[in-house]
Amino acid sequence: MTHAGPGRPRLREPRRPGATARAEILDAAAELFTTRGFASTSTRLIADAVGIRQASLYNHFATKNDILVALLEDTVEPTIEFDAGLDDNHPAAVRLCALAWFDTAQLCAGRWNLGALYLLPEVRTEQFGRFRAEREQLAVRYRDLAAEIVGENDPRAGLPFRLVESAIAIRADDERVDAKLPEMLATASLDVLGVSETAAVKRRARALVIGVPDLSPGR
Amino acid sequence: MTHAGPGRPRLREPRRPGATARAEILDAAAELFTTRGFASTSTRLIADAVGIRQASLYNHFATKNDILVALLEDTVEPTIEFDAGLDDNHPAAVRLCALAWFDTAQLCAGRWNLGALYLLPEVRTEQFGRFRAEREQLAVRYRDLAAEIVGENDPRAGLPFRLVESAIAIRADDERVDAKLPEMLATASLDVLGVSETAAVKRRARALVIGVPDLSPGR
Repeated sequence: MTHAGPGRPRLREPRRPGATARAEILDAAAELFTTRGFASTSTRLIADAVGIRQASLYNHFATKNDILVALLEDTVEPTIEFDAGLDDNHPAAVRLCALAWFDTAQLCAGRWNLGALYLLPEVRTEQFGRFRAEREQLAVRYRDLAAEIVGENDPRAGLPFRLVESAIAIRADDERVDAKLPEMLATASLDVLGVSETAAVKRRARALVIGVPDLSPGR
Repeated sequence: MTHAGPGRPRLREPRRPGATARAEILDAAAELFTTRGFASTSTRLIADAVGIRQASLYNHFATKNDILVALLEDTVEPTIEFDAGLDDNHPAAVRLCALAWFDTAQLCAGRWNLGALYLLPEVRTEQFGRFRAEREQLAVRYRDLAAEIVGENDPRAGLPFRLVESAIAIRADDERVDAKLPEMLATASLDVLGVSETAAVKRRARALVIGVPDLSPGR
């Protein structure tokens, strides 16, 4: 038995980050899905990695797909929430820059590079419908903000979303991601739309992003 | 027995694009890997999809991994060859633009979106070493050309390669890819580096790309 500060003594030393069994399961699954592959990982393997019985895992998630659904939704929902809190009175360029900045930081923040699982064939099935709808909602949001800058029918409006998600391939290729990556991709998102005076836009966007507790260094 | 023009009569109607059994195997495997998943596809399934026996498949490829190696190398080698043929006397911006244009067209050209398999955990194993080295060689080439424009230590030098590979996610999300995508991503690759006078650069790059038979409409 170990004591982790105040409160109830734990029956075992936790093996994984996460305050709850659910969080530990999610972390173990994220590691196995991204390093071993989704199809090659069983719920048994996940339970073993957490140090619980398979039956206990089923108290939290009915299927392996349910675990992946939870993990993928976690990669988009904080950004959707951040976007919903953005004041519409800011110019489109400022909002777009802040969104790209926050979203890239978000994609780089987790211990595991879950975006690498977006293109799995399994994710095209019905069970992932809500995740796909949420990611599409984000893509549309980027596109709408960009269209306010370049006009409705300019195909460049699709580029900022793609630049932000390139953080996934960058993480996959480079073990260590540059701390400046969110700022760089946010700036590039303005550059591809031909925004001038990006320094002023970035100053305002940075203030919006820094105000968000989730992006504090302690995270 | 069917006759496909002059030459020897074929024993059966070919089910797949490809002049040879090897090409038919590659096409079937590419379809299964991208729609069903690599781990969930067996060589038996591939042989069934081609309409040959598993033993015949093994005459061409010893393992399922060997098939994926061949498919992935095919996604980078034409671009490496195109790059090797580019005249060093062109300015860096022209070569970078032509490279991005050709490479995007190349990533969009195949029947199956094979780039979606780049992030598979299996691709990190030794057997894929040559593919990884070739893709890295391309990434370095983009970076070097970009560094001639923005300077050696500017992190933006990594962006053109990422923009080009975003064609993979665009294909995965949109069934139908805009025919202008190669030009758009080539232009964006210049925009993120702050290149001015992109119209003149694009004119020269287009001439280099159009001179390449592989990109003719008949492909």
